[in-house]
Amino acid sequence: MSLSVKHCLSRIFQPVTHVSKNSNLTRQQVTSNSQRLMLELGIIQQSVPGCFHLLPLGLKSMEKLIKIIDEEMFKIGGQKLVFPTLTNSQLWQRSGRLKEVGPELFQLKDRHEHLYILSPTHEEVAGELVSMLAPISYKKFPLRLYQISNKFRDEIKPRFGLMRGREFIMKDMYSFDVDVESAKKTYEDVCQSYDNIFQSLGVKYVKVLGSSGTMGGSLSHEYQYQASIGEDNILHCNSCNYIANTELCGDQICPNCQKKDVTVQCGIEVGHTFFLGDKYSKCLNSTCIGKNGKPEILQMGSYGIGISRLLAASIEVLSSETEIRWPDVLAPYNVVIIPPKAGSKEESQTEKKYINLYNKLEQRIPSLKDNVLLDDRTSLTIGRRHLDAKRIGYRFIIVIGKKSTENPPLFELNDIEKDTQHFLTENGLIEYIEKNIRFS
Amino acid sequence: MSLSVKHCLSRIFQPVTHVSKNSNLTRQQVTSNSQRLMLELGIIQQSVPGCFHLLPLGLKSMEKLIKIIDEEMFKIGGQKLVFPTLTNSQLWQRSGRLKEVGPELFQLKDRHEHLYILSPTHEEVAGELVSMLAPISYKKFPLRLYQISNKFRDEIKPRFGLMRGREFIMKDMYSFDVDVESAKKTYEDVCQSYDNIFQSLGVKYVKVLGSSGTMGGSLSHEYQYQASIGEDNILHCNSCNYIANTELCGDQICPNCQKKDVTVQCGIEVGHTFFLGDKYSKCLNSTCIGKNGKPEILQMGSYGIGISRLLAASIEVLSSETEIRWPDVLAPYNVVIIPPKAGSKEESQTEKKYINLYNKLEQRIPSLKDNVLLDDRTSLTIGRRHLDAKRIGYRFIIVIGKKSTENPPLFELNDIEKDTQHFLTENGLIEYIEKNIRFS
Repeated sequence: MSLSVKHCLSRIFQPVTHVSKNSNLTRQQVTSNSQRLMLELGIIQQSVPGCFHLLPLGLKSMEKLIKIIDEEMFKIGGQKLVFPTLTNSQLWQRSGRLKEVGPELFQLKDRHEHLYILSPTHEEVAGELVSMLAPISYKKFPLRLYQISNKFRDEIKPRFGLMRGREFIMKDMYSFDVDVESAKKTYEDVCQSYDNIFQSLGVKYVKVLGSSGTMGGSLSHEYQYQASIGEDNILHCNSCNYIANTELCGDQICPNCQKKDVTVQCGIEVGHTFFLGDKYSKCLNSTCIGKNGKPEILQMGSYGIGISRLLAASIEVLSSETEIRWPDVLAPYNVVIIPPKAGSKEESQTEKKYINLYNKLEQRIPSLKDNVLLDDRTSLTIGRRHLDAKRIGYRFIIVIGKKSTENPPLFELNDIEKDTQHFLTENGLIEYIEKNIRFS
Repeated sequence: MSLSVKHCLSRIFQPVTHVSKNSNLTRQQVTSNSQRLMLELGIIQQSVPGCFHLLPLGLKSMEKLIKIIDEEMFKIGGQKLVFPTLTNSQLWQRSGRLKEVGPELFQLKDRHEHLYILSPTHEEVAGELVSMLAPISYKKFPLRLYQISNKFRDEIKPRFGLMRGREFIMKDMYSFDVDVESAKKTYEDVCQSYDNIFQSLGVKYVKVLGSSGTMGGSLSHEYQYQASIGEDNILHCNSCNYIANTELCGDQICPNCQKKDVTVQCGIEVGHTFFLGDKYSKCLNSTCIGKNGKPEILQMGSYGIGISRLLAASIEVLSSETEIRWPDVLAPYNVVIIPPKAGSKEESQTEKKYINLYNKLEQRIPSLKDNVLLDDRTSLTIGRRHLDAKRIGYRFIIVIGKKSTENPPLFELNDIEKDTQHFLTENGLIEYIEKNIRFS
């Protein structure tokens, strides 16, 4: 039945399981709601502690996130490239981080006994790349290099699924500027870009002053989602609106206005920006040829978005205990069409109307291309498939029910975000979705 | 000048260097023409031996290749996912490959002293994933799972740049079928898909019988590009057209017709298919619930395309010693527009005609979206920029020269593949490109 429709549920590898009290999964420490939902509904599957298979629906969502980020990075002149994962440990020796980060680094030796690390972040590598290319004229700057790639961290206690894994996907940008002033401009541009990205997801976030930790540098901001499982504590001053990670400012008194009228809430860090100055460029000798013809140390910035974490954190914030909810722009599919049960009266009466509907949705709403799914498991009742669609969080559920045999045919549309049900003509349905979907 | 145009050369991070006899790069063993060209023209940059930075032009090309592969995989029901890189070494113990592959495996211990490998391939991991999900009904098969991800191999002597690296990007698919018959059908489907992919690149390839090596299984085919640096030897029987890797058949006599009229040529393996039978599924207990209600061992296949290698191999085959050539579908850009030199008479007379032209090309030829580049380095002569464009291999070079000030304006179009030059009106130019570009 499904040959004329591109995306059919029966063809998707989505192994639905159940995390029971005695299952393997519980023993593997299911520590957050999003992790349990993503495991149960076949979005991810655990391989070893802190390492997950990203299954097709999860990957489809992540590829959407990557596209959003790529577009925003392009707007600020971001140059996408890929650094190798294997990193010469000597680079980290030079920056001092080999010791400093220590046990969180995965280290290995090659057959020639050379020591490498699996990079959790690439300040040293980016700095070395630029230094290898010397001499570069000051005219070539700013340079804003970024990649989206797997990162590795030997967490002592991986937890919350994709949120604190040992292998994770990160977007990391490294900027190089000829002086502090232009480096600050770059910092502002990237922050604006991050605001655009987080706003487009539609999940409430706060940008707070951050601690620079082992990264170093003089200024840092964090983008935080508020959630009870968040491992950061965010202080907000109700008097002057100062907002910062308590690592930076403590949790009692506002360091800005000295008042005690502060609120502290838990946050999940989904983005982080660092103004690094010359911390890395100096020891790696990343220079440009200045206007005076002499080499000058470059000013660096580093900017990360935890892509796999952001995906999980969005689900953590938006979902209920039993049903996943996604930002519209990240949902693997936005619309699911549920045709009648096989052998039912409606099946013969509605013929293949849903195929028409499927194709019209894609044609009339271009952003729905590849985002409409047909639940072709017609051996199951409509009710059962409806429940499944709600659990996985496909926002617009279209049921081809009794009224679709009337003239004009009416389709049942469920908007699970608004928790509403409508009976609409084909046109009415398309207009409703077009108006309500958030794809900005 | 370039604000109204999306892709300007001056904004691209493309560090052009020169591999001289005394440079670092020579010491790092530049062992193939494509490697030297890609290094010199800022497509890649070496980090440590066998590990490369993939710079923006290289990544743009690779993302095109990935898109082509994704589309073909989708057509045969391929389910895209991502397996973790860190792989429990016990899985490889169970298959026997931990010892067998031995020194080519990168191995490391985590802080709890658990041993992991950085997977060069994922038969064990895929097999374990399916076995974890048991019981699965036979109705759910075939399963065709694939990923595109970084792979690792501790080559004793990395060489030829991306062609034999220690870290590389591979598309690997793993298929699971309920019996041998349907597994053979899957094998044929994937081979057809591979033929589509290699044909769309337009580089001449041969499909030959391959040796299964440490992979195991009973049947294997290789997709080979012919090139003098190729490390495989391909025997072709001029009498019966039998064709195979000499690892399988020796290099003297055709094993099919026993004649000695054979030719042996060097090849670069760019794809490989394996019919694995139950080699992995048996030891990993990857089963389905058969029609009789009992668990049955699944039949597996494994199918790889070396993505980073294929990119380099295409360049190796198509390029001259001094100029890169790409398959049209993989070139980072297909068209470059060279406006007049700053301060020239033509500059004032042609005004901003090239911006119009740029936008019209994108509008009239949809496949050129994001594939037209403006060489806005107007401090350089047209001649110099023309040479650069030829070296990097942008197929259609449009020069805004003297004749573009005539009425009607004529543009100089150089088709570097055909080595022809034409003076064409805007319409003529668009028609020429539309007709000659290979985007099938």
